[in-house]
Amino acid sequence: MANLLEINGVFEADEDAYDGVKVQINEPMDSNHFVTMLRASISQWRIQGKRGVWIKLPIDHANLVNAAVKEGFWYHHAEPTYLMLVYWIPEIPHTIPANASHRVGIGALVMNDNGEVLVVQEKNGAFKGTGVWKMPTGVVDEVNDDFESFSYLFVINCNKILTKSKSSKQQGEDICVAAVREVQEETGIKAEFIELLAFRQSHKSFFGKSDLFFVCMLNPLSYKIQKQDSEIKGAQWMDMEEYAAQPFVKKHEMFNKIAEICLAKKKNKYNGFSKELMTSAFSAKKNYLYFNH
Amino acid sequence: MANLLEINGVFEADEDAYDGVKVQINEPMDSNHFVTMLRASISQWRIQGKRGVWIKLPIDHANLVNAAVKEGFWYHHAEPTYLMLVYWIPEIPHTIPANASHRVGIGALVMNDNGEVLVVQEKNGAFKGTGVWKMPTGVVDEVNDDFESFSYLFVINCNKILTKSKSSKQQGEDICVAAVREVQEETGIKAEFIELLAFRQSHKSFFGKSDLFFVCMLNPLSYKIQKQDSEIKGAQWMDMEEYAAQPFVKKHEMFNKIAEICLAKKKNKYNGFSKELMTSAFSAKKNYLYFNH
Repeated sequence: MANLLEINGVFEADEDAYDGVKVQINEPMDSNHFVTMLRASISQWRIQGKRGVWIKLPIDHANLVNAAVKEGFWYHHAEPTYLMLVYWIPEIPHTIPANASHRVGIGALVMNDNGEVLVVQEKNGAFKGTGVWKMPTGVVDEVNDDFESFSYLFVINCNKILTKSKSSKQQGEDICVAAVREVQEETGIKAEFIELLAFRQSHKSFFGKSDLFFVCMLNPLSYKIQKQDSEIKGAQWMDMEEYAAQPFVKKHEMFNKIAEICLAKKKNKYNGFSKELMTSAFSAKKNYLYFNH
Repeated sequence: MANLLEINGVFEADEDAYDGVKVQINEPMDSNHFVTMLRASISQWRIQGKRGVWIKLPIDHANLVNAAVKEGFWYHHAEPTYLMLVYWIPEIPHTIPANASHRVGIGALVMNDNGEVLVVQEKNGAFKGTGVWKMPTGVVDEVNDDFESFSYLFVINCNKILTKSKSSKQQGEDICVAAVREVQEETGIKAEFIELLAFRQSHKSFFGKSDLFFVCMLNPLSYKIQKQDSEIKGAQWMDMEEYAAQPFVKKHEMFNKIAEICLAKKKNKYNGFSKELMTSAFSAKKNYLYFNH
């Protein structure tokens, strides 16, 4: 790989916009040799005024983790296939950016022309055994492949790597897309995103990370339910009022408020946020902006 | 630690609600001994019908990473002080939950009674050198301490650990709190959160992770600006119309739309989402629900 060229015993590194350098280890390496090169590299980067040093270690090269840690590196983040280590050269406090902090979930209010909502009972999870009929819910899919994400950072120096790896990658999932997907997966119902009704932020929900949960209103495009058997115990259309009147919903403040919002929406007395695809300022990417139209 | 008791050469593990087991390594260990115990443990867990196996390795025990990977573990996530490894025992596809996928940022529209908004120029980052006056922005603080988050998962079996470690931990930050904090940090202006006006979801913004950016409207509680010198080049109150008329804002679809929303808000012709603190259904925690009141 172009970015692991060894020049005079120093790692060839890519530079970022914050005086940082990035090294990706792509070939097997003896840990003693790794340490020798790392020390020589850091000495050179220090003279050059570099600040953060990133090392991306694919899981195949886990033999180098301990050596990097002994040299003063710490963990920044990890994905199934790699570990990202980081080091800070200057004598001042580091400004290394934080890791991803939130998981994003959706709940789907699918309401048909009869004022019925699509509800499910789950086989597992927190609602197991409660008998509660709930909206289909799920987690927004994240990016699965890791290489592009890193190579994206060296786009300035390594356009070829970005281009080469881009086609096979999965993009992170939009909230409006996740809601449609989860409804179809759990119930077989095709639907279209209409509006975001509300969202909740919670903390320490999973490994100390935070959680954002978006309640989306969808318009069904089919009627016949074909439930997914492995996760879903039952699925049906239910009067919105009956959903809202369930003792579990009435009893819990958050569920009750969301049900109230859904009832208001049914009566056309509520405006949420709808979506609009827009070009970003600093790239050619299109992103959704959600607002009250 | 109670959860690293060795009984008959097998790791003492805590169980989760999904037939998973969790081991936390708290003491130095030879990697050969670790592997012997790990193999014996997995054999036993397999017989017991366990599925996911989690190993939390503090960075002090990085010497065991390579051994765990050789035994078939992969990386789930990492924070500065630890690496979480995971393994799946059954012959069926794993159902290990995903890692956090999003970073959460805020932009603050602070509008005073004269219809002026608080704007800044940044010394670094994407706006550097553009001359654009922009809203204060920042990233929602994440949880810094890692231990409680893991111990939280064994609350069923290990109440003591949870209780013991809880008091010293930092909670993840609420969006409404982050907006107030960033405004004060960058400009010295005290403000209160009023409403969420819009949000944008983008992908592959940082290490392949996604990004949620929330535009918050704040009411200023002070007037005199004291800018933060290290990041902020300038800060001032500016007519909302003047802000919106900047060529950079006009030129970029996303900025222009957000400026339009802010102008509509100034004329009281826009409703965003305000916040309400509510008790969650499955814990005693209070979380914010954001909706159109």
